[in-house]
Amino acid sequence: MEIEHESSHHQIVGFFACMWWWIMGLFKKFKGKVIGVTIMTKKLGQDDPRRIIHSVKMGLALSLISLVYYFRPIYDSFGVSTMWAVLTVVVVFEFTVGATLGKGFNRGMATLLAGALGVGAHQLASLAGEQGEPIIIGFFVFLLATAASFSRFFPEIKARYDYGVLIFILTFSLVSVSGYRVDKIIQLAHQRLSTILLGSLTCVFISIFVYPVWAGEELHNQIAINMEKIADFLEGFGGEYFETELSNGESALDPKDEKLFLERYKSVLNSKTAEENLANFARWEPCHGRFKFRHPWKQYLKTGGLIRQCAYRVEALNSYINSEIQLPSEFKKKIQETCIKMSSESAKALSELASAIRTMTQPCTADVHIANSRIAANSLKTALKTALPMDSDLLQIISAVTVTSLLVEIVSCTENIAESVHELARLAKFKHPQEQIV
Amino acid sequence: MEIEHESSHHQIVGFFACMWWWIMGLFKKFKGKVIGVTIMTKKLGQDDPRRIIHSVKMGLALSLISLVYYFRPIYDSFGVSTMWAVLTVVVVFEFTVGATLGKGFNRGMATLLAGALGVGAHQLASLAGEQGEPIIIGFFVFLLATAASFSRFFPEIKARYDYGVLIFILTFSLVSVSGYRVDKIIQLAHQRLSTILLGSLTCVFISIFVYPVWAGEELHNQIAINMEKIADFLEGFGGEYFETELSNGESALDPKDEKLFLERYKSVLNSKTAEENLANFARWEPCHGRFKFRHPWKQYLKTGGLIRQCAYRVEALNSYINSEIQLPSEFKKKIQETCIKMSSESAKALSELASAIRTMTQPCTADVHIANSRIAANSLKTALKTALPMDSDLLQIISAVTVTSLLVEIVSCTENIAESVHELARLAKFKHPQEQIV
Repeated sequence: MEIEHESSHHQIVGFFACMWWWIMGLFKKFKGKVIGVTIMTKKLGQDDPRRIIHSVKMGLALSLISLVYYFRPIYDSFGVSTMWAVLTVVVVFEFTVGATLGKGFNRGMATLLAGALGVGAHQLASLAGEQGEPIIIGFFVFLLATAASFSRFFPEIKARYDYGVLIFILTFSLVSVSGYRVDKIIQLAHQRLSTILLGSLTCVFISIFVYPVWAGEELHNQIAINMEKIADFLEGFGGEYFETELSNGESALDPKDEKLFLERYKSVLNSKTAEENLANFARWEPCHGRFKFRHPWKQYLKTGGLIRQCAYRVEALNSYINSEIQLPSEFKKKIQETCIKMSSESAKALSELASAIRTMTQPCTADVHIANSRIAANSLKTALKTALPMDSDLLQIISAVTVTSLLVEIVSCTENIAESVHELARLAKFKHPQEQIV
Repeated sequence: MEIEHESSHHQIVGFFACMWWWIMGLFKKFKGKVIGVTIMTKKLGQDDPRRIIHSVKMGLALSLISLVYYFRPIYDSFGVSTMWAVLTVVVVFEFTVGATLGKGFNRGMATLLAGALGVGAHQLASLAGEQGEPIIIGFFVFLLATAASFSRFFPEIKARYDYGVLIFILTFSLVSVSGYRVDKIIQLAHQRLSTILLGSLTCVFISIFVYPVWAGEELHNQIAINMEKIADFLEGFGGEYFETELSNGESALDPKDEKLFLERYKSVLNSKTAEENLANFARWEPCHGRFKFRHPWKQYLKTGGLIRQCAYRVEALNSYINSEIQLPSEFKKKIQETCIKMSSESAKALSELASAIRTMTQPCTADVHIANSRIAANSLKTALKTALPMDSDLLQIISAVTVTSLLVEIVSCTENIAESVHELARLAKFKHPQEQIV
């Protein structure tokens, strides 16, 4: 009896101990998750504080529109349709002004058009009597939904009106099948359009007047940043490859930081989708700050494409950076200067181009560096003619020759980029730099 | 009088002529647009007939769900909430099964969760009396909308639950501010959840059982296609660069077609976003065809990344293809064979890897070609040792040396790809090829 009692006592203690460990484990896991999320939140916020501002703006827009429910005169005239104002705010509010404007415009226009067509279809179908009506309506819905869905595969429609087509299908189906009488539908249409307008206007107002994020400005900066990333690599490349201490400030970085610094260009490789989205949004934006309504956004895409071309070469170049083959010192000395010159002059040209874009001035100062890098590339020919030590092994110099050749390619790429930026400066009428600089 | 009459007559004739030209111009413009759209439609349909099927499926789903309005027993029990079934179909139906399942799941779960929270918030706020209620509700909405909007910046949430968070914000705001009594809300919640379930099930049913497009299969094929595109380039490169007529069937292509053929790899450069989206959708999909539920989709992304690495090298290589510098014929003869060997063996290895992925068999046959390309790369060393004509100009051979060096890089890339495909074959338990092949 005593033993049995003790054993059951042990069991209970064991059970509670187990429970205790399990709960502690869960708690620890939860704590870990919370810490992880906190760190991530902090990082996301620090990387781009506009994310926090955007979230607060969303909260603000939604609380504002929610107040409509409590503001009797408005609620009484809209009734249940007030819901559509809230719905509109949630789906229309986007990170950039352009995206918000585009979605608001798409939503409004599509609702208007599809509503009108829906009423027409409903009227037409009602002529067919109670039996025929569902069939005709079903046929109309099928036809329009199929055609509209297919139109979303057209690249131009996909880029600018994708959301509008979705709302078109939605509204047309809702209106045509709703089965309301026409006078009721017109009242509903009026209410719905007003609430959608109210919601869209709230979004547009907040996104334009509270810390706006302009897609156009974003694209503009993105292009400049991408150039700078490539320039950073080219600036550091000479020193890294030839293992010389360049006498600039950057050499103070510790090796790990420098490695990261040299890898910044990698994000440029996959920048196409982001740039295209920004350009599409930018086209919805009115003039803002230094950008006019018809700013040549397409030229930015062209420039972005050329920057990526350059980034692909840089990526190929990067695999030679840690080459372990020892160059014959005589050969190294001959080409080192020219290579460092090509790389650093291209870097300077890209930096100048980036700063010309940032300040929206004519990129005249970059031309000097472009010319210098071209001269270096040409002087390479004479350097190579004399550089090859007759008794040396081609194997030893193969990677150096490749690096040289890729650098020449990069010089050409930089020239193309410069040309494209000049074209951009012409199209967007960048201002001329102050005379004293020249 | 006569003259005046004639002049006004002339004016009228002129006006009508103008109108006629204007209308004809408009008509021509319209005809041009129609022809353009027709050609585009045909092209889009021919490129991928599944686009047409998808559109028809969308029409079908929507007409089916619209019939609910005309089916009295259902309509009577759901009332106005029937609208949510239509709404759900329009927004949930996507091109691939995975995307449809993901959106349906997100919509359902988010509605459930946000609905429950919304009722709670509403109850809590009603304790504060008529004056305090709007303030407390406004505060809740602000807090949750801000937090939820910010969570959309977390990469993991963005990838899988972006739509869910949107619907969460939407439903929470709608329910908490709606001002209904609790019993009414519970009835509404029941109706809305049922209709959303009905809509989602319709979408899922049609997308799975009518010509399904599986995101997983799409990703699987995409990876194989990308390898083949690179293989095509490498196969053609030797002949193009050394201007030899290779004795394979492809040389029958006319030069323009061959040019296009060699440029097919370009789409690989920007394939990252598409692959990541497909992998995210694929994770929602149940087992289908040859794919199990927990198929190693991440390994596809890794392989895809390595293929892009190879594509960047190919892009760098491509700029040397039309080099106009004449190689010294002695040097050319020495390296030509090795270069063509490296390039064509890598091409064969990639083709074999692609076909191993397509047939889901162990990629054993590729290993031979990998080994051959490695042997060629090594034999290059001896070739280069003897190849350099002492009196020749380094300038003349710089592009050939670069090409050789880039080809060696591509051989390494191919090895990495092969390793990654072997890992994939191990993880996904690809079947062993028939013994007779060995």
